[in-house]
Amino acid sequence: MASLRSYRLLSSRLSSAACRGPTHKGIRWASSAVSQDPMTGELISLPDIEVSKLETVTTDSPKPLPSSSQLVFGRTFTDHMLTIPWSANKGWGAPKIQPYGPLSLPPSATVFHYAQELFEGLKAYRDESGRVTMFRPDMNMKRMNTSAKRVALPSFNGEAVIELLKELIRKDKHWIPDIPGYSLYIRPTLIGTQAALGVQPPDEALLFVICSPVGPYYPTGFKPIALYGTTEYSRAAPGGIGAYKLGANYAPGVVAQKEAAAKGYSQNLWLHGPEHHITEVGTMNTMIVLKQADGATELVTPPLDGMILPGVTRDSVLTLARGHASGEAPIEGLPSKLIVSERPITMKEVKEAGQNGRLVEFFGTGTAAVISPVDKIGYLGEDLHIPTGEDGMGPVSRPIWKHLVGIQSGSIEHPWSVTVTEH
Amino acid sequence: MASLRSYRLLSSRLSSAACRGPTHKGIRWASSAVSQDPMTGELISLPDIEVSKLETVTTDSPKPLPSSSQLVFGRTFTDHMLTIPWSANKGWGAPKIQPYGPLSLPPSATVFHYAQELFEGLKAYRDESGRVTMFRPDMNMKRMNTSAKRVALPSFNGEAVIELLKELIRKDKHWIPDIPGYSLYIRPTLIGTQAALGVQPPDEALLFVICSPVGPYYPTGFKPIALYGTTEYSRAAPGGIGAYKLGANYAPGVVAQKEAAAKGYSQNLWLHGPEHHITEVGTMNTMIVLKQADGATELVTPPLDGMILPGVTRDSVLTLARGHASGEAPIEGLPSKLIVSERPITMKEVKEAGQNGRLVEFFGTGTAAVISPVDKIGYLGEDLHIPTGEDGMGPVSRPIWKHLVGIQSGSIEHPWSVTVTEH
Repeated sequence: MASLRSYRLLSSRLSSAACRGPTHKGIRWASSAVSQDPMTGELISLPDIEVSKLETVTTDSPKPLPSSSQLVFGRTFTDHMLTIPWSANKGWGAPKIQPYGPLSLPPSATVFHYAQELFEGLKAYRDESGRVTMFRPDMNMKRMNTSAKRVALPSFNGEAVIELLKELIRKDKHWIPDIPGYSLYIRPTLIGTQAALGVQPPDEALLFVICSPVGPYYPTGFKPIALYGTTEYSRAAPGGIGAYKLGANYAPGVVAQKEAAAKGYSQNLWLHGPEHHITEVGTMNTMIVLKQADGATELVTPPLDGMILPGVTRDSVLTLARGHASGEAPIEGLPSKLIVSERPITMKEVKEAGQNGRLVEFFGTGTAAVISPVDKIGYLGEDLHIPTGEDGMGPVSRPIWKHLVGIQSGSIEHPWSVTVTEH
Repeated sequence: MASLRSYRLLSSRLSSAACRGPTHKGIRWASSAVSQDPMTGELISLPDIEVSKLETVTTDSPKPLPSSSQLVFGRTFTDHMLTIPWSANKGWGAPKIQPYGPLSLPPSATVFHYAQELFEGLKAYRDESGRVTMFRPDMNMKRMNTSAKRVALPSFNGEAVIELLKELIRKDKHWIPDIPGYSLYIRPTLIGTQAALGVQPPDEALLFVICSPVGPYYPTGFKPIALYGTTEYSRAAPGGIGAYKLGANYAPGVVAQKEAAAKGYSQNLWLHGPEHHITEVGTMNTMIVLKQADGATELVTPPLDGMILPGVTRDSVLTLARGHASGEAPIEGLPSKLIVSERPITMKEVKEAGQNGRLVEFFGTGTAAVISPVDKIGYLGEDLHIPTGEDGMGPVSRPIWKHLVGIQSGSIEHPWSVTVTEH
């Protein structure tokens, strides 16, 4: 995690440089780790998040555990939550694990007005031996800090938050249903809580984490979805925020999703620019599998060009596929001649591949579903059909999904799986 | 307000059409005024906002009035606030004027995660006779409904909310400082409060209004500002949300502002696309005045192409200038030969106008400052200097500002000024 730490220090330096610049009426530059003494002008180091300062208040009215069969994503939350306050003057305060309950905020809090908010989503799994693990939490903490920097929210020591996540999960581990495919969805969130209106870095913020037990996304086997190719709205643009997990990326996408549903499709496919470049599927990354003329199989995903969210599942799929392609970590069932490409791809190319019988698969990747196969894309008034196997998957997604879920569930040993507790 | 009402009904029809479309796992389409009976499938009309249902709870601990000389924008709030709850099943509930105080929301509320939020800003003024007025509140209500539709938040009867704003302002009218140039800033806000995670139209929402007394933006006369032409970040893009007053437009702009300040400029100028089209100044609309070859004066502002916020001050400046240009409502001091253009304009054109001595003025327009003159633009490493008069203003901005402020302060009678109370 050395890179995270140095990222944070760099970020602090940038902020403190801004402190020396001219100030505009009512604007004060906040930094997570460095502040300027109002009397002497000297730079002061502010506290980062410290695990040793954790206070824990246990609920005296634990909720009954929900029936596993009736879990709906994000509707039920565990008994406790983690909160960590931040202020521009005092830095990060003491972390607290406390009973799950409402946040009380002034109506002037900037999170309500200017979307000073970002979040992450990751899961904790229980394996057959009772061990509880998280999947690649370092990736979420790295992205959370990157997101924070993009909207001038405070950055923090990601390692410390991973330790605090472990504490929280241990506290509520009985909420992870003891059934294969079930898990605990963990939602770290960072909001600006400054009590005064003004479009500027907030002088107060709150990091909080809530947890929700979830069932499998496809309880009765994979169901390929139909996508509507959205050309009326855009999700992201150069110089914008598409590459960051900010709240501001989500509310504006709801109408595109709503219109896709009204037309009979489950999700929308975000197409960018005049050439209709493929970007994301709803709130997932996109993967396309093509058969090349020489018989090789190409796994294509749009590059991280500033408009694509750097998904943890995206990175995991690419890493596993590259390990197989290089021969370093072969995965049973994957095509022997596999090429992994992060490159731009347009609807024209996908459509032509479909017409030439070279379109092998199209799927979304994300934390919720891991892999979501697609069997149809509505595009400019026509439906493009995409092959799927009897199980709903295809020759690349099937072995990768099995391997990835094996790592997540603990049946395959892998450093991506981080132990929370042995039982 | 007939147009507002019909807009709202249209919006409801669109939502109810979506109800009949296929539904995706966990997604339910919310509508502000029409819902579907879960048993019979029939469409049910839901209550809109009704002024007659207003409940008022007066504070028993009024705050001391702040010293007028120490008011800072958005830091002090009056004794009361207005809240109006909405739910997908029950429509809009009873409006309530109650003591200003914290909102208590579950940490899973969608406003914290997906930026389901939008706001408005308008002002109430007290004239010499003691009469209190609002400036063009119908424009704010129209835009608020347009914004709501863009992020699938509920729409509402804007006329009713204007009446409720009047009630709230009457309740706290003693908070408007009795000093020329001072006013009461009113902040209507609409947030999604659904207690469950999920990127979809929320099933609960809250409209709230808070008020803050504010002093003049330029207490000691106009101070022209220096802008930094931002090419590293973009504020808006085609198919995006730039034309809507959504929270999601604001947090992402803070870093551009912060970097402009670090380089020694007060605000940033948003330039769009490879040709560096001029769009907005920080959080203001942009106006440019050019001298044409035939001696005519042209007032230019970028058109409402989907990337520009339809500002109330922008519209007011254009309407006053057009009234003068047509001869229907001449304004003393404005050039006799005035052309008003809503058209695209690039930095290249502005720079060339500056080199040819044809650049007369450059200013921002917005509710806070009304008019903000600009005297310098840092662009690609060079500073472009813009003429300003001794009073900081120019031949177009000066007479328009005087006229507009005359209307707002009540010294010029105009239908834009809506009476809240006679004394």
